[in-house]
Amino acid sequence: MTMFADRLMASIEKKNTPCVVGLDPRIDSMPDVVVESARNKGGSEEEIVRRCITEFHEIVIDAIADLVPAVKLQAAFYEQYGLPGIVAMQDTIAIARRHDLVVILDAKRNDIDSTAAAYASAYLGETIVLGKSRRVFDVDALTVSPYLGSDSLLPFIRACERYEKGIFILVKTSNPESSSIQDLQVNEGGRLSPLFSAVARLVDDAASRLVGTCGYSSIGAVVGATFPTQALQLRKLMPRSVFLVPGYGSQGGTAKDVVACFNSDGLGAIVNASRSITYNLPAPEIKEQAFAELLRKRVETMRADIASAIPKSTVRA
Amino acid sequence: MTMFADRLMASIEKKNTPCVVGLDPRIDSMPDVVVESARNKGGSEEEIVRRCITEFHEIVIDAIADLVPAVKLQAAFYEQYGLPGIVAMQDTIAIARRHDLVVILDAKRNDIDSTAAAYASAYLGETIVLGKSRRVFDVDALTVSPYLGSDSLLPFIRACERYEKGIFILVKTSNPESSSIQDLQVNEGGRLSPLFSAVARLVDDAASRLVGTCGYSSIGAVVGATFPTQALQLRKLMPRSVFLVPGYGSQGGTAKDVVACFNSDGLGAIVNASRSITYNLPAPEIKEQAFAELLRKRVETMRADIASAIPKSTVRA
Repeated sequence: MTMFADRLMASIEKKNTPCVVGLDPRIDSMPDVVVESARNKGGSEEEIVRRCITEFHEIVIDAIADLVPAVKLQAAFYEQYGLPGIVAMQDTIAIARRHDLVVILDAKRNDIDSTAAAYASAYLGETIVLGKSRRVFDVDALTVSPYLGSDSLLPFIRACERYEKGIFILVKTSNPESSSIQDLQVNEGGRLSPLFSAVARLVDDAASRLVGTCGYSSIGAVVGATFPTQALQLRKLMPRSVFLVPGYGSQGGTAKDVVACFNSDGLGAIVNASRSITYNLPAPEIKEQAFAELLRKRVETMRADIASAIPKSTVRA
Repeated sequence: MTMFADRLMASIEKKNTPCVVGLDPRIDSMPDVVVESARNKGGSEEEIVRRCITEFHEIVIDAIADLVPAVKLQAAFYEQYGLPGIVAMQDTIAIARRHDLVVILDAKRNDIDSTAAAYASAYLGETIVLGKSRRVFDVDALTVSPYLGSDSLLPFIRACERYEKGIFILVKTSNPESSSIQDLQVNEGGRLSPLFSAVARLVDDAASRLVGTCGYSSIGAVVGATFPTQALQLRKLMPRSVFLVPGYGSQGGTAKDVVACFNSDGLGAIVNASRSITYNLPAPEIKEQAFAELLRKRVETMRADIASAIPKSTVRA
């Protein structure tokens, strides 16, 4: 085993891109052929739901695994389907692992103390189950919310240390009104600066404890593509943290916007696209092979777009 | 159906107490008899885990259902056991509903836009599953984190309106270092005030849209028992919001400390205790009936303690 940051950087280097595909199950937006095939195999509604989600992601991951270093599963979209959704989340994690992809779970968890430790056990570490240690969801990295304060992050950081996992702490999110909280001007020793920079300092402090041989830390930050000016500030405040960058594509962030999230070495960020890769189909009747080709084409376009924008990049599509 | 705030207030009035029991599955801390009984019924490890958690909560809820208006399930402790934990979470919700308890899920979820909407669908509303509307986890209220800003709260607020549900937004949490973020001094129109009061203003703004006939809103706030001075300020900033108060008992909050969370009508807060009620057993060998009696005794002691401290209370143990 190697540290999360080193595994992620090795995967970025191998695939030669910082582009990540987001996996957000929305059955109603999947190609008809996926849903029909899942229905035709019969069984209960729960079995059909699980099959839709799992088989959809099997197609997606098969199509794009050689083109990206990592996938980002959005927990909310799995949870909205209840148990079959969560079974399918486990399936998706297993499929991604089989393809040697780094698996990031975007679940934005946090809590205090032993409760935060339980989330860390669920997703990054181990749970003692009837006297035996068991890996539960076991992803490579988890997104974590900082609102509960520095001590609430510690159980996650400890799990990263112990199990060679990573976290991405929410710093500046991509939604328009993130400013209503994250940009509030905070007094720090007589100087006013936005809340997100206070959070960035917490992140950088934690990040310094978990720097890999690649020079980056397993403690990363979520910084939206939609706020390039803020990203530039944040890049300076958290030089060792990998930025997980949502907001490219459907949310309006462009390749030019994400440049600020990268360091001058052309590294230090991964850019996620979800809907713009896997949904918005030309027609719901699209066949499986055409869908797989569309997925590859979209990821290749994104790779080229991002590569062309990163200055002094070591990563080229 | 009636609004969440009205259902909660009716339940508080009926049970004559604002005390809530927290359900945090920790199999290793359960009475031996629960684990032995679950093992003796045989089956896979997953079946035994589910049975431990479900049967434990069956005993707990049977013992205390007539003594409290609501239970609070902590999602992290269910999730740490993976799928059987989440099946047992559904079981626990069903058992609590059968006993006519208000069910609060403490999951501290949030995200942006359609992702926040997916969480709202999972826990408060409905998901379209293969063309049909389905309730998924379907609790009465969910805890929600505010870090992503005002627009991230809207999908939850809309679900509360549409499905007569409630949310409790994290404002000031009970952990010692909550101050590292929540007490940062924020500049609001030239005046410095803590971040938690800026969040409280967001909460109060949302709360004003969903006030029930009881005078309280379905949009509540999480305010820890461990910070009575801050609670006093927050009580004034969010007069219509019910406070969900963690931190009483194991975390050191006393009945005197929680008084600040109540309005002068003796209402406006629910006080949660988890570990101090259901765990910390005198001996793991405790028998089922003795355990049930212990649970009742502890809840009765808490009820009396809280009732004696609330000034001008209409609620008496």
